[in-house]
Amino acid sequence: MLGSGVVAGTYDLDFAYGRTDKDGLTFGDELRRIGYLGDAPAAPRQFAAIIEAHIEQGPILDSEGTTIGVVKGIQGAYWFDVTLTGASAHAGPTPMEIRRDPWRALTPIVAGIFGIAQARGPWGRATFGDVKALPGARNTVPEKLVLTVDIRHPDTATLEDMVREMHDLIARNAAANGIEAHVEQVWYMPPTAFDARLIEQVTKSADELGYSAREIVSGAGHDSLHTAQFAPTAMIFIPCASGISHNELEWAEPDDLSAGADVLLHAVLALANDQETA
Amino acid sequence: MLGSGVVAGTYDLDFAYGRTDKDGLTFGDELRRIGYLGDAPAAPRQFAAIIEAHIEQGPILDSEGTTIGVVKGIQGAYWFDVTLTGASAHAGPTPMEIRRDPWRALTPIVAGIFGIAQARGPWGRATFGDVKALPGARNTVPEKLVLTVDIRHPDTATLEDMVREMHDLIARNAAANGIEAHVEQVWYMPPTAFDARLIEQVTKSADELGYSAREIVSGAGHDSLHTAQFAPTAMIFIPCASGISHNELEWAEPDDLSAGADVLLHAVLALANDQETA
Repeated sequence: MLGSGVVAGTYDLDFAYGRTDKDGLTFGDELRRIGYLGDAPAAPRQFAAIIEAHIEQGPILDSEGTTIGVVKGIQGAYWFDVTLTGASAHAGPTPMEIRRDPWRALTPIVAGIFGIAQARGPWGRATFGDVKALPGARNTVPEKLVLTVDIRHPDTATLEDMVREMHDLIARNAAANGIEAHVEQVWYMPPTAFDARLIEQVTKSADELGYSAREIVSGAGHDSLHTAQFAPTAMIFIPCASGISHNELEWAEPDDLSAGADVLLHAVLALANDQETA
Repeated sequence: MLGSGVVAGTYDLDFAYGRTDKDGLTFGDELRRIGYLGDAPAAPRQFAAIIEAHIEQGPILDSEGTTIGVVKGIQGAYWFDVTLTGASAHAGPTPMEIRRDPWRALTPIVAGIFGIAQARGPWGRATFGDVKALPGARNTVPEKLVLTVDIRHPDTATLEDMVREMHDLIARNAAANGIEAHVEQVWYMPPTAFDARLIEQVTKSADELGYSAREIVSGAGHDSLHTAQFAPTAMIFIPCASGISHNELEWAEPDDLSAGADVLLHAVLALANDQETA
């Protein structure tokens, strides 16, 4: 989504080129190295409509046996880095009762954030994708634990409530355990609503082609989130096996891929032939 | 302790040379690179007595204002790697209720192991020095969490009880959350008792020199653990500020360092002049 974000003006081109991976390699240098750093301007052109086809990356279509998901919009997400700082100490000699071990705060924080998401079912989500212990030595109480937190909900007000509760929870459990907590917001993706006329056309094309369809909300971010800032945008979902994604087990049936492409083609043709689009 | 472990025959020389750091560099290659790979045999010589002086690495002497710790032995320790395997899933689209998120098992396991150690106060210890999430992506439920566990107690039977309870706790919480648990024992250090005659001499020397002294158990492993396998061994502790160790804040007062060296010198002289030692 970095490229579409630059085109939409959400990110500066230099910001994009400066992004680093875990090994410190920058996006710009690596594009140059592999010969993909072109000279076309990274700016919006005039689009009558943008429709993005994608696997659902979730289990709903697959479990229901529905072929086409007509995506109404994308749920909002917050990313945070939560740093819990205590005091490192040798594992053997330091009595338990005088330690300031950040694990004491981390476990109720993780359990509590799960609770915050589950209280907002079925769309509330909480994910802890990464965690690091510093210094990370087996025989040393960590001075710091750094936890990534991903919180999502399609409704803006509900999402804000969840984040407020998370901040309270972290502050409370850090204080109760003599731990210093620092919460850094890394990213915010506001809920996005797609274009009503395009949603209607995707529904119509799926119907005309005889595919089963249902409305759905995207739980993940997509390029369409950025393109919706400068052009009418919609998405088409197809099922993926058990909703598994970002994983080598990811799988979509050829028939479903074909159905998705079919709906995409017919929706785009209909829009291109529609006087109002031009 | 790797070198003393080889001398004691606990480790093979090739095992020692083959140890790698986090970057995959081996101990043997690095010794060669810095010019420290000598050719003297790594085997026990004949020792009448071995006395190791060390900071306590714990807070007891410092908080009491006692100068000399006469170390009776070293508490036992187990090291484990606990791998909790669930299923990775995209953070947005995957409903909370169908996830198999290893965090669900990890939080009660960490809290429970703290409980196991604290129920064996004041010497029971539990430390989680490192943790890794795999694949470790911010927007993905981790497939695996790998947690290091360090459990210590100076009494063998109590230590075994703690480990048994830990295995039960892990199995129970993994099963309850649909998570697969694998516990790998990485290291075991049995409790070590030091030589009675040397302990007596250290006590006597501290007393003759007018330093305050108390008996103490070492919570950390030391070279003396290995040397005690082939020679009469004891240790002398001095205070360190707030018990902080393995940390840039580690500090010992010059007067205490001097006192420890003084007791070491006089104990060694007394033993060297003692007919029984020769």
